[in-house]
Amino acid sequence: MSELDVQSLQAEVNRLKLEVNALKVEDRSEQVYIGNYLLARLEQLGVKSMFGVPGDFNLGFLDLVEDHPTIDWIGNCNELNAAYAADGYARVKEQGLGVVLTTFGVGELSAINGIAGAFSEMVPVLHIAGVPSTAQQKLKPMLHHTLGDGRYDAYRKASEQFTISHAELQNSSTAAVEIDRVLTDCILHARPTYMTLPTDLVYTKISSERLKIPLSHLPPPNEPDEEEFVLSEIEKLVEEADNDVIVLVDACAIRHDVRKEVKELIQKTQFPVYSAPMGKTAVDETYERYGGIYVGSISHPEIKEKVESAKLILSIGSLKSDFNSGNFTYSIPTTRTVELHSSWTKIRYAGFPGIGMKQLLPKLTKRLHEVNAAARQIEVPKFVATVPEESDDVISHNWFWPRLSCFFKPKDVIVAETGTSSFGILDVPLPKDAVFLAQILWGSIGWTVGSTLGAALAARELGLGRTILFIGDGSLQLTVQELTSMLKKDLKPIIFLLNNSGYTIERYLHGKHRHYNDIVNWKWTSLLNVLGDVDGTKSKSYTVNNKKELSELLDNASFANAEVMQLVEVMMPMHDAPRALQVQAELSGKTNKYVA
Amino acid sequence: MSELDVQSLQAEVNRLKLEVNALKVEDRSEQVYIGNYLLARLEQLGVKSMFGVPGDFNLGFLDLVEDHPTIDWIGNCNELNAAYAADGYARVKEQGLGVVLTTFGVGELSAINGIAGAFSEMVPVLHIAGVPSTAQQKLKPMLHHTLGDGRYDAYRKASEQFTISHAELQNSSTAAVEIDRVLTDCILHARPTYMTLPTDLVYTKISSERLKIPLSHLPPPNEPDEEEFVLSEIEKLVEEADNDVIVLVDACAIRHDVRKEVKELIQKTQFPVYSAPMGKTAVDETYERYGGIYVGSISHPEIKEKVESAKLILSIGSLKSDFNSGNFTYSIPTTRTVELHSSWTKIRYAGFPGIGMKQLLPKLTKRLHEVNAAARQIEVPKFVATVPEESDDVISHNWFWPRLSCFFKPKDVIVAETGTSSFGILDVPLPKDAVFLAQILWGSIGWTVGSTLGAALAARELGLGRTILFIGDGSLQLTVQELTSMLKKDLKPIIFLLNNSGYTIERYLHGKHRHYNDIVNWKWTSLLNVLGDVDGTKSKSYTVNNKKELSELLDNASFANAEVMQLVEVMMPMHDAPRALQVQAELSGKTNKYVA
Repeated sequence: MSELDVQSLQAEVNRLKLEVNALKVEDRSEQVYIGNYLLARLEQLGVKSMFGVPGDFNLGFLDLVEDHPTIDWIGNCNELNAAYAADGYARVKEQGLGVVLTTFGVGELSAINGIAGAFSEMVPVLHIAGVPSTAQQKLKPMLHHTLGDGRYDAYRKASEQFTISHAELQNSSTAAVEIDRVLTDCILHARPTYMTLPTDLVYTKISSERLKIPLSHLPPPNEPDEEEFVLSEIEKLVEEADNDVIVLVDACAIRHDVRKEVKELIQKTQFPVYSAPMGKTAVDETYERYGGIYVGSISHPEIKEKVESAKLILSIGSLKSDFNSGNFTYSIPTTRTVELHSSWTKIRYAGFPGIGMKQLLPKLTKRLHEVNAAARQIEVPKFVATVPEESDDVISHNWFWPRLSCFFKPKDVIVAETGTSSFGILDVPLPKDAVFLAQILWGSIGWTVGSTLGAALAARELGLGRTILFIGDGSLQLTVQELTSMLKKDLKPIIFLLNNSGYTIERYLHGKHRHYNDIVNWKWTSLLNVLGDVDGTKSKSYTVNNKKELSELLDNASFANAEVMQLVEVMMPMHDAPRALQVQAELSGKTNKYVA
Repeated sequence: MSELDVQSLQAEVNRLKLEVNALKVEDRSEQVYIGNYLLARLEQLGVKSMFGVPGDFNLGFLDLVEDHPTIDWIGNCNELNAAYAADGYARVKEQGLGVVLTTFGVGELSAINGIAGAFSEMVPVLHIAGVPSTAQQKLKPMLHHTLGDGRYDAYRKASEQFTISHAELQNSSTAAVEIDRVLTDCILHARPTYMTLPTDLVYTKISSERLKIPLSHLPPPNEPDEEEFVLSEIEKLVEEADNDVIVLVDACAIRHDVRKEVKELIQKTQFPVYSAPMGKTAVDETYERYGGIYVGSISHPEIKEKVESAKLILSIGSLKSDFNSGNFTYSIPTTRTVELHSSWTKIRYAGFPGIGMKQLLPKLTKRLHEVNAAARQIEVPKFVATVPEESDDVISHNWFWPRLSCFFKPKDVIVAETGTSSFGILDVPLPKDAVFLAQILWGSIGWTVGSTLGAALAARELGLGRTILFIGDGSLQLTVQELTSMLKKDLKPIIFLLNNSGYTIERYLHGKHRHYNDIVNWKWTSLLNVLGDVDGTKSKSYTVNNKKELSELLDNASFANAEVMQLVEVMMPMHDAPRALQVQAELSGKTNKYVA
């Protein structure tokens, strides 16, 4: 039995202990407020920052949060930004979760797009809504923040669409069990969960007994005989493939926390490894046998050829969305594919529900150990970005992204907004231990402003490097106010604002010259001054109009050290876009025709 | 039969004609795109501005909007602001509706709090979501903006909670009928409705035949015998009350468009008239027999006494939410109450479903015609606001609101944010033909920024006066970016920004000295410059620190003429609040205890 299996078993034992505990009557442990029980659990799970907006019905709980010794209340400008921040925080913390606190109706509904995004992209976020007291929930008076028709369950019904489990705390006897249930679901499945916290229950006392048993994100062990069968089948295919095997990592390798296991696999086997866009940084992009980004027909030809000609593809945590698969243009037959997922495995056409990769991967690595000599012969194209020579001084996407790649450092947290940024950065290798955040499936523009706040807080907590955001002018306008929270919390992100006069990704999809893709141009370099850095000591802003100005700035040590918050307005042509976006837009246009 | 009855019958006839039309096969009329059919209907209903954000899946329809000769695309900074704007627009336009266009998933969910607010406060808003093509909806691929699990119906299910009807356009044969249905529901019931518009159907051609028959917001006539019975019963009670009758107007008198009918009733009968907070401006506040705002135990003592001692209360369009009723402290027995509503009537304890006030009111007025002489004897306290003498120069709420009342002019559109503003303005009479907007039931802070944009556009379309917004610094931060749209559209609102260092309404509810009610102070007077008025020609900003500075500004003719967009930062003490808010907070605190 592996060490991980033992840990998994221990986690399973703990879950059962909690179940037993719930059924016991006798209890002599210390009594705690339900509000504090919840906070104790969050503290155990590593939560140090909590996001949200105060509102009637959550103020009592906020007293407990504000008084908590290790959890910091961030206090966002609005609830959508807060949900985005919790999402960004959870992505960087890993093995932990993000928490967003809102108020009944008005607050929780404003956050719902952020929660749906966390659902879609598989990010563990707990959404706590402060709600009226249990007495009021029975009487259903026409309180402010209600729909006026007594439907107190409408918000929960909406939330249910975008969360994997929900607890409506209703009494003290089940509160702890319910809290533990939604927290466990959240961290075990890496998906958002939802909890309503009535004003009176926050200050109702319950036993603290259950707090002695920790919650775990580790899944239960796989069924041994089935696991053994799966391992043999995979081993057989690898042998048949004569070690012409490539590994393709994707989103869920990051979300379900198997980066370490994947690293061991590829180092021992020496199989070449590639990544889908959403799997970027699942494997160190400077690793010698890493070949870059595979994204179907949008891939660079050499990468496409290498991936698609392999005799066997070990696909780890794949998520084949349109933008993550070159608009569904993978050219890899199922007969040559083994798919490992968080809770199931697929070998060619055969599905094995219940066999999860977290436990499977180390065992697979062990089995495949000896085959590395042959695999090493297979050449892997070096993934590099070369700064092109261009005749003019205009900052083109073609030039911008490779140029930026020299600016990145190990452990940087790099956030790319949906649009030119998320496509542009794909072709650039990120440094060792860099963390990469983008919302390639959900694609809600404006998301990165909140998520950069959350990511920067998590990075500070974990001692990571700089937080660097790439965002267009159109996207920044959606959620701009959250920049003030970065100033408030003394964060020092570097924000590259690509000023290309509107929604460039939309222009590529449709309406290249339409006014509806225009936006009002703002005086970007005065923005941080207005949003809280009144005396100019907490931030710096720059405009760079050409390659020379940008290069000089990037080469400036003080700039690169990120000593204060910095915003760089990068002037770019309205109709320029990265190669990958141009090809994607062309493919999208074919399946999603707009004209008659 | 009254003229209104005839009109109602005509409306009913038209609805039936449309039904007949739907069942007919033969059709030789001109073919139009479904997208243009929808726009033609909106044009017929007086829509001249459309709100929203472009996104993949609505771009094709946006081409038609941009090319439409009379409908202007506003293009908001984000979808929540857009929904708020559509709400504000609908409130000022009356008899019309507001329209918000978003994209699949990410866009529509961001708007959902704004739509829920329109539901709660009964505002006719049509939410159109641009969605993938009908072919894609059948195949359900993992497109961007999806949840990744094929549930293409999740967003509609969430929307259903907050809209009274929904149409998922699926084919050309039912599209026109479906469009007409959700539009009719929207304007007839003054509630939001929801429609999905697939990319391919926008450019599918259908018959334009139905467009010849107009849609109507008029409800069908009441059942004549029951109506006659109701009229006799009310008449009897009025006689028994010996003409000691008062009229109490509320939200639905405005929302269901009976202001004209109420005016005729009170002028003929001379009954004293009072208003609930949400009914403010349903009756001209300068009318000689108007006594001011009744809000249960929060009312001024003289008003409370007059209202509660009347032998009969004719309540028109009441909506007894907590903040609209002094936390449910009406002291008016049911035996002395007649309630008229949009679709039902209640006489003491007896309910008459189906008897709506739009048709009933004119008939009631006719019946009660002769009783005015006696009613006239009942004295009505004059509703005035006196500017108090205060010893210091601090801008207190006590002084601010009466002082502002002299600044208002007839036909001004006045918007008050939930919080100190919405409570403060209650005690101040507004001029004749003023339009008043507040969100007293839903109470989503930040709402007024979007709704001021919509209100100002509607005011310009209708030739009304200035648009004046009162908002706190905490609330403005939620939705601040939308100020840029006002600059873009050359609107000239006057914005009074009450700078009291945070969420003052929350401080009164709970956590007076808590940090979670603090916000970052912004450089408010530079904001408009940053958000688009780069050369300073389109706006002016001011800070007023004391009574003298504010008075001088208000007396300045150029300021009062609203020649450009203006923002006035009004410095107020952090812990000051209007009387009504202080009392409301005390009452709320009793029913919604926070401490243990």
